[in-house]
Amino acid sequence: MVKKIQILVIGNNENGSSPELEKIAYETGIEVARSGAVLVSGGLGGVMTAACKGAKEGGGITVGIIPQNDASFANKYCDIVIPTGIGLARDFLTALSADGVIIIGGASGTLSEMCAAYMPKRPMIAIKNTGGFADKYSDQYLDHRQNVKIIGVSSPQEAVKTILDKINSK
Amino acid sequence: MVKKIQILVIGNNENGSSPELEKIAYETGIEVARSGAVLVSGGLGGVMTAACKGAKEGGGITVGIIPQNDASFANKYCDIVIPTGIGLARDFLTALSADGVIIIGGASGTLSEMCAAYMPKRPMIAIKNTGGFADKYSDQYLDHRQNVKIIGVSSPQEAVKTILDKINSK
Amino acid sequence: MVKKIQILVIGNNENGSSPELEKIAYETGIEVARSGAVLVSGGLGGVMTAACKGAKEGGGITVGIIPQNDASFANKYCDIVIPTGIGLARDFLTALSADGVIIIGGASGTLSEMCAAYMPKRPMIAIKNTGGFADKYSDQYLDHRQNVKIIGVSSPQEAVKTILDKINSK
Amino acid sequence: MVKKIQILVIGNNENGSSPELEKIAYETGIEVARSGAVLVSGGLGGVMTAACKGAKEGGGITVGIIPQNDASFANKYCDIVIPTGIGLARDFLTALSADGVIIIGGASGTLSEMCAAYMPKRPMIAIKNTGGFADKYSDQYLDHRQNVKIIGVSSPQEAVKTILDKINSK
Repeated sequence: MVKKIQILVIGNNENGSSPELEKIAYETGIEVARSGAVLVSGGLGGVMTAACKGAKEGGGITVGIIPQNDASFANKYCDIVIPTGIGLARDFLTALSADGVIIIGGASGTLSEMCAAYMPKRPMIAIKNTGGFADKYSDQYLDHRQNVKIIGVSSPQEAVKTILDKINSK
Repeated sequence: MVKKIQILVIGNNENGSSPELEKIAYETGIEVARSGAVLVSGGLGGVMTAACKGAKEGGGITVGIIPQNDASFANKYCDIVIPTGIGLARDFLTALSADGVIIIGGASGTLSEMCAAYMPKRPMIAIKNTGGFADKYSDQYLDHRQNVKIIGVSSPQEAVKTILDKINSK
Repeated sequence: MVKKIQILVIGNNENGSSPELEKIAYETGIEVARSGAVLVSGGLGGVMTAACKGAKEGGGITVGIIPQNDASFANKYCDIVIPTGIGLARDFLTALSADGVIIIGGASGTLSEMCAAYMPKRPMIAIKNTGGFADKYSDQYLDHRQNVKIIGVSSPQEAVKTILDKINSK
Repeated sequence: MVKKIQILVIGNNENGSSPELEKIAYETGIEVARSGAVLVSGGLGGVMTAACKGAKEGGGITVGIIPQNDASFANKYCDIVIPTGIGLARDFLTALSADGVIIIGGASGTLSEMCAAYMPKRPMIAIKNTGGFADKYSDQYLDHRQNVKIIGVSSPQEAVKTILDKINSK
């Protein structure tokens, strides 16, 4: 078994991101890389680009799973690109590709990935004070089924440490 | 152009439904059928089965878009079954197949369909006092982009009338 | 159980079609409609449009499962449109939506639908002398597993009669 | 731009494979790894497992894009697993993820990947004398549109050299 741990980072794309969010995403990417895990993302802009950039500078491997049918649409920090060609339904594929998920801010696209990760019970960590659905659902379950609680943390370092603990204790 | 209006009804499956919700779903199905629209649903249990049953008793046509790869998994009130074989990612297909969406209660699966409908700006109506995400997001936008406001209404009759108004005014 | 029999008609799109093929597709559509079955297709041009047109003139119901994310891309003879948004991967959904398949001519897109129907053993009929993969694989299995033999027939009438026999004898 | 070249190896799964085919697939995997390209496959048995094993022994990176919704279904030589959850429709994703494709033998599943790669004009190489669709379509176009000719070669070494030439000359 050679499979690496795969950590998905989700959050605002370029239409809802900010320098503050991207700094957090960048630091998260570095931490993921340093842990030896592969960074998986939706492969596009905003939080996704910043996380990939961090992971590359941290010496890691990055995978971008994109909606389009050609790798040229991915951000330039993806080592490996999966051009799904299935549009936004790829949100289910990023979720299923995650051993664990880290949420930074996030709008409706992020929320669809959270739902897609919640149903098959993938561990999820939200970085607090990043706004959007990370804050809205921090320390909560998405619904009455209580599949997995979305754990709120305070920093990229804590996020990566906590998600690895969750993954390794399964 | 022979295309019929397609109204998607979403809400709790058999694991979160109740006789009260199913009565509302059933009446919604009847109203959709009486309007001449096609009722589209995820084709499985709970709210989906009740809505399909109502639509059939109202003399309408029902379409079930299911996760599995065989039509036998659909509820018995679907005239036409699309066995997608793509698992829960079919939530994006039910959303895209909707000219308009009616929400009754709903847990994380319903929320993923709401996200999938919100991104391409499909009109959405929530029936109030049905719990779940119908109540949580009634009269709200899902995010800062304000793509479409989810309009809260008080009855199946008002839901179908309002969604048809929205669809016809586009 | 109200589900109708769903017959998929596949073949050349507008880039490989001809008046002769479209006449055969049109007649196939009429026969499908007269049998009471629903005509399913990929919802676009060439053989797909002609089959849908025939089914509508025969008084039937037509479903178009299209690659795009908006119903406006479907041909104008589709009563119900499933805008999958998953690109050409929708070929697997048309195949799974078929109780039986009728092949008229066909290029690489048709061949991918044939593969997608062959793997889950959907009955397939090819109308002979229509060229393309209908002729190439008439009266053959696609591979050594011999899942289903593609039965060659000589006319739209024989195609619909034969596919209904296959479906009803399952 | 850090993206690596991604070479897809397709062919018989465990139900149609043989020691001879798997030896060829294994050697192909080694050559892909030595070239510095990432080996992409459908992540399951037969030719897929052998190619992944070769790539790992050659020091490369392997990606398995599988039909199921959990990484545990992949063969044990995949570094990175994309559990698509979309069933056999994942054949379109393996194809789109390829900068170039190498075909070894192959039954109907392989043929569906060939169609999926042909439509968006991905370069394809078939290793001759491996049976199945590799031999059937060696040095041919799949259809009248002549999108890409499937080039027949005689060895894994020639296959990897030729596909890299094709990819680099685009």
